[in-house]
Amino acid sequence: MTIFSVNDIAERVRSGGTTAVEIARDVLERCRKYDAVQKQVWILRLDEESLCAQAARIDSRIKAGEVLPLAGVPFAVKDNIDVAGLETTAACPAFAYTPEVSAPVVERLQEAGALLVGKTNLDQFATGLVGVRSPYGAVQNAFNREYVSGGSSSGSAVAVAAGLVAFALGTDTAGSGRVPAAFNHLIGLKPTKGRWSTRGVVPACRSLDCVSVFTNDVRDAGLVDDCLNWFDEKDPFSRPAAGSPGTGAEFSFGVARDEQLQWFGDQASRQAYEKAVGHLEMLGGKKVTVDISPLSDCAAMLYRGPWVAERAAAVGDLLKNNPGAIHPAVRGAMRDGQGVNGVDTFNALYRLKEFERMAGNMWKGMDILVLPTTPTIYRISELLAEPEVLNANLGLYTNFVNLLDMSAIALPSGQRENGTGTGISLIGPAHMDRGLLEIAARFETQFGDMTRPPLDLESSGDTVVQLAVCG
Amino acid sequence: MTIFSVNDIAERVRSGGTTAVEIARDVLERCRKYDAVQKQVWILRLDEESLCAQAARIDSRIKAGEVLPLAGVPFAVKDNIDVAGLETTAACPAFAYTPEVSAPVVERLQEAGALLVGKTNLDQFATGLVGVRSPYGAVQNAFNREYVSGGSSSGSAVAVAAGLVAFALGTDTAGSGRVPAAFNHLIGLKPTKGRWSTRGVVPACRSLDCVSVFTNDVRDAGLVDDCLNWFDEKDPFSRPAAGSPGTGAEFSFGVARDEQLQWFGDQASRQAYEKAVGHLEMLGGKKVTVDISPLSDCAAMLYRGPWVAERAAAVGDLLKNNPGAIHPAVRGAMRDGQGVNGVDTFNALYRLKEFERMAGNMWKGMDILVLPTTPTIYRISELLAEPEVLNANLGLYTNFVNLLDMSAIALPSGQRENGTGTGISLIGPAHMDRGLLEIAARFETQFGDMTRPPLDLESSGDTVVQLAVCG
Repeated sequence: MTIFSVNDIAERVRSGGTTAVEIARDVLERCRKYDAVQKQVWILRLDEESLCAQAARIDSRIKAGEVLPLAGVPFAVKDNIDVAGLETTAACPAFAYTPEVSAPVVERLQEAGALLVGKTNLDQFATGLVGVRSPYGAVQNAFNREYVSGGSSSGSAVAVAAGLVAFALGTDTAGSGRVPAAFNHLIGLKPTKGRWSTRGVVPACRSLDCVSVFTNDVRDAGLVDDCLNWFDEKDPFSRPAAGSPGTGAEFSFGVARDEQLQWFGDQASRQAYEKAVGHLEMLGGKKVTVDISPLSDCAAMLYRGPWVAERAAAVGDLLKNNPGAIHPAVRGAMRDGQGVNGVDTFNALYRLKEFERMAGNMWKGMDILVLPTTPTIYRISELLAEPEVLNANLGLYTNFVNLLDMSAIALPSGQRENGTGTGISLIGPAHMDRGLLEIAARFETQFGDMTRPPLDLESSGDTVVQLAVCG
Repeated sequence: MTIFSVNDIAERVRSGGTTAVEIARDVLERCRKYDAVQKQVWILRLDEESLCAQAARIDSRIKAGEVLPLAGVPFAVKDNIDVAGLETTAACPAFAYTPEVSAPVVERLQEAGALLVGKTNLDQFATGLVGVRSPYGAVQNAFNREYVSGGSSSGSAVAVAAGLVAFALGTDTAGSGRVPAAFNHLIGLKPTKGRWSTRGVVPACRSLDCVSVFTNDVRDAGLVDDCLNWFDEKDPFSRPAAGSPGTGAEFSFGVARDEQLQWFGDQASRQAYEKAVGHLEMLGGKKVTVDISPLSDCAAMLYRGPWVAERAAAVGDLLKNNPGAIHPAVRGAMRDGQGVNGVDTFNALYRLKEFERMAGNMWKGMDILVLPTTPTIYRISELLAEPEVLNANLGLYTNFVNLLDMSAIALPSGQRENGTGTGISLIGPAHMDRGLLEIAARFETQFGDMTRPPLDLESSGDTVVQLAVCG
């Protein structure tokens, strides 16, 4: 199965080497085949007729002379992002509604000629880093289906990893756009908060939410950013892009003190990280050891602090009127959120201000921070046996990024014997997006290993899926 | 009684025309006299010995060749701002503590050679716009003691208006640094949030609090800003000063639609405002009528929204352990604050984001906004009879400024027959401070009426003071 490249497809479709309709047919075929493996990647997929009609419209636009940066590029959208006329479920059927207008991020991609294939599965209400918290089934790792795909943007990551689409939108509040990238050998770009519109997105923590993207290479992520980097007058969280503090050939990067990194016994993950750090030095990066304990302390606030109230705020009366419709793990967080009071909320916001100051000072000593994307990975069965603790472990190196208004890009760094991916994250201050993409591209060009382990394509047993259905 | 000018005193002391010790003696005499009128301006005043010792140290520094921008300038500090070794009460004896270090704002003024005279009375915990909410007595308007001084920085305003000090620090969360300026014919500068350090200040609403200053003229306020505009590394709310969007000779200013301004029958206030608007046009200002309803809607959130939880957060366990120690009106707001939940808090913060966007759009159409500082003034007796509603009326045109991250300067615009002052406020976006000072200086030079009605110096009857003591 060929890996889709956003840039290549767009180039081929634009130049007449192929058509959007041909791409659509190919995608339909790929999806049909992969349905036998794990259909639960999707919550909703366009049928042949409407996909081909959409593709035909793209072909007409090209014929009419439009230059489309994403001509015919198939993409998927996490099902907490609105697409006009399609149900948005956020993986909670009782919450579902059918929006009349698309989220601006979707609109802009379609304007750019991209071909929408469907809506992907997720940890319900984007609450989780695992991919098993969905009534539509647990999404399994594309390379070893005993293992989690990572979440919450589970379906989007696997749709790209399995070669069903060339890129997919996720969302990222605490790592949901990076953890599944690491586990599935993908690029996961979490832009600066407010850089891409979040209008038409079901909030997880509205003050922290970002739309993110999964791609197969860094250049593809940059192209999607070109299309989505836009000030949305109607989104109060949208920010005009500030001048990016680009990095030259020389850059400094922070790494955590050895004893501050937990791996939970995952030697492959550790070795991949150390190798990547060495590679960054070879690229001209100057390594600086930093104390990441303020970041870890800050990260701990996300589920133990008032931000869980944002998760409760996002679902309105559903929690009161129909709590059984909410996945138990998600419901737990939301219930905690209902118990938060205003005094605690403001006190935590003050504390966040202090952490922001500390983070601001950290940036004086380095251009970017480089951490493993996750310490380790878990089997789905392990995760289901200990859902909260293991989920929290996965967010150790991602949780603080949104709270502290940072930008980040997750990159593949290697693989475990079991085929699942390990990853590193390049993290920068707000508005560093293009600088991160630059360094990531150099890293990928020099040291990126684009060979992937084979996909795990055994026909699906249904056990895991059933286990994960919430009641 | 001569009006003190910060610039004049500093100049005279620096040039040897007088000494800080002479100034101190003069101040002691003025204060002693005014004690017979209303001693309750002060919560704590330095005694002769320590004031003169402080002055002597200033004189020594000058002799040693130091150039002190505020050489010998007597000032007062609102008693919610720390001065090392002096009790901070926030007008609540049960809350009082004695700090070991001064707030940086105080430290910087003393470094600049200013002479600290004492700590002034306030609406308890800076909660109120009236000046009657204090167990130390109701501070009366300097020009007519039947009327409120305005608050919460009541003592600081009257200390300047009565000529006891040349300037005084207040704080401003919702108008506390502007309302008393208007009522007592003073300048009240509320700088951009984070421009002056708020470390060592008892919070009212910590996310909104500013230190402010009262002076007799605009140039004096500018000089104090020169000393206090400083990034405080240790204050997480401190912000580096951004380049001020100065205004040229031509500027545009917004005024509210006629029907959006309430005056509660106060024709003098209305006429003074209209006259001031005319004067701003004569200065070259281009008048633009704007719809201020989003600002009013935003202002309404301050006491009806979650920010009251910040007031509860500020006093910690006192509210639970010793509620009787808190003034009833202040306690009411704090109790409301205890009832606020996290979901409501975040929902209000989202709504604030929307208001911020609207405000951002307003600034595209004008450089500054000009509003009356208050619609009217009340007798102390009226205020005590209807404490909450009348207090709220006074904040109609000031409350939104801090919520929406604006800067403002309150200027005298005239007087009522009863001698109390009317005022206008020039309001700008964040970081407009110097631009506001510029326009204010031109307004003052061309149209400012520096003659004041006589001070109300009858010996104090104690009735009003007793009425205001809380139980």
